[in-house]
Amino acid sequence: MTFPDVLKLLQDDLQAVERAIQGNFTSDVSLIPIIGRYLSQGGGKRIRPVLVLISSKLCGYQGGNRHILYSCIVEFIHTATLLHDDVVDGADKRRGNPSANSKWGNEASVLVGDFLFSKSFALMTNDGDQRTLDAMSDTTLKLAEGEVLELVKTCDVETAENEYLDVAFRKTAALISTCCRLGALLAKASPEREKALLAFGTQVGLAFQLVDDALDYMASEERLGKPVGKDLQEGHVTLPLIHTYGQAAAKEREEIRTIVASDVISEPQLKRILELIDAYGGIDYTMNRARSLVAQAKREIEIFEDSRYLQALRTVADYIVERDQ
Amino acid sequence: MTFPDVLKLLQDDLQAVERAIQGNFTSDVSLIPIIGRYLSQGGGKRIRPVLVLISSKLCGYQGGNRHILYSCIVEFIHTATLLHDDVVDGADKRRGNPSANSKWGNEASVLVGDFLFSKSFALMTNDGDQRTLDAMSDTTLKLAEGEVLELVKTCDVETAENEYLDVAFRKTAALISTCCRLGALLAKASPEREKALLAFGTQVGLAFQLVDDALDYMASEERLGKPVGKDLQEGHVTLPLIHTYGQAAAKEREEIRTIVASDVISEPQLKRILELIDAYGGIDYTMNRARSLVAQAKREIEIFEDSRYLQALRTVADYIVERDQ
Repeated sequence: MTFPDVLKLLQDDLQAVERAIQGNFTSDVSLIPIIGRYLSQGGGKRIRPVLVLISSKLCGYQGGNRHILYSCIVEFIHTATLLHDDVVDGADKRRGNPSANSKWGNEASVLVGDFLFSKSFALMTNDGDQRTLDAMSDTTLKLAEGEVLELVKTCDVETAENEYLDVAFRKTAALISTCCRLGALLAKASPEREKALLAFGTQVGLAFQLVDDALDYMASEERLGKPVGKDLQEGHVTLPLIHTYGQAAAKEREEIRTIVASDVISEPQLKRILELIDAYGGIDYTMNRARSLVAQAKREIEIFEDSRYLQALRTVADYIVERDQ
Repeated sequence: MTFPDVLKLLQDDLQAVERAIQGNFTSDVSLIPIIGRYLSQGGGKRIRPVLVLISSKLCGYQGGNRHILYSCIVEFIHTATLLHDDVVDGADKRRGNPSANSKWGNEASVLVGDFLFSKSFALMTNDGDQRTLDAMSDTTLKLAEGEVLELVKTCDVETAENEYLDVAFRKTAALISTCCRLGALLAKASPEREKALLAFGTQVGLAFQLVDDALDYMASEERLGKPVGKDLQEGHVTLPLIHTYGQAAAKEREEIRTIVASDVISEPQLKRILELIDAYGGIDYTMNRARSLVAQAKREIEIFEDSRYLQALRTVADYIVERDQ
């Protein structure tokens, strides 16, 4: 099964998710649906809804539309954090298109992000399920803490690998693992299955962030829709560089510290960082960590009997490390 | 009964609220409690917690600490919107102190605001009361919409009075009325009492915003802790100016439009606006509207038997129009 096969398997539900996203972006405040449409057409991969849908089906959820509702909710929360991230990072581009903040200003991005967060809260509250509310509120709190933690660690090249993983867990893996867990909660699956999906999602979520951070140093601008070395430019010190810094000679470390501390990273500085990352295998190290997380994730879900949905879940896990954007 | 008498009446509970605010600002992400302490010491009036506490007592709530919890929750939501507002408005000062964004950067303000919003969501979810969850989620959605709506109306001097009131209702009155309603919800008061408190809070909340907007043109920087005409500088067209524009001669309207559309409002321009507002009684008009809203608010709560808490509620309503900051 390939990733496009997974999308085909979920086709009807994914279309329902798109309708839910559009439908819930309505407001009599007209800027909200305008920005909503723009963001929806931005070509996100919808990984989080995909995980909610597959895990729901895997656990035998049927007879309702709550998997569609929660797919919409997690995508709203994700989009809200993207809007705020772009403001924090001063990003001009998102997936190759002008970012919302560069189009409508930071003000609109902050406030429409708040709207999305409030809306997802209202949708969950309206659904009125204490267990999903607990799971989601715990997740959004971790997310917010992860974002602040990442900010504090900005430009800190001494960031240890475990601190980096802590940020990655809170800001990315927490929501992705909750997406997987939601399927179990909606289907009222056994605690054992819920735990397995949560563990699967945690590993896959961490891998997702690691691959993102590796791609940032690998990808060409045309493919990724954003410049190479953007994280470094924004002061985010990620695993490829942390590993490189850990391996480098004293003089090279000094060089890295100087470059990271620069207000603006020049072309030659970026080139030098890329050379060092290449020399010390920072990308390979990061990708190998991601691959082993994905292998671990797949072991977590061995308790499920084989099915199209189990295969789909494995395919998504593989896609996360194989994707080129 | 004076406003200081009200604070004295609620002294123990207000101290408990302060402890709850500090206690819930904890996080292993150290920037969060640091900013939390800074904001807590910023000298907010705690009007929203005061209203939760009085309305709870008025409705006979006892035997628990949920009035303290919800006081903390509403203050967190309010603080989150202030943090995001200051980013949106590019404000340097808040209550006479450097604003959080000017001290730690817009990034921290956006993200700590998100943390506060997530935290309040987690606290409510943990309390697990469907009726308060519904009330709060509806309120936060209105708040977010109000903020976007205000942004859209920025620099729009043709803003009609009812559009202005719509923004004021969503961004200010919705939360204040929910504070009053929360007392009834916590005490499981009759629908009639709940409705009366909600109506009281709506009028008082609108009056609060009107007075804020009048004070912005009246107050000296020392007293208010921010410069006169700050709203105009930020492109917010409020009732004193809307009324003035409506009354002004064609040539003066032209003048107002030009000034409002300026990137930066110069001293002479601000002086001219203040002259026109004075000439057409923009402040008096706004304050009279606020006074009549407060009178209406007091009528809404006539269904309650007389008590110290009913007197306290009336005192807060009066304080809202009499305050000078």
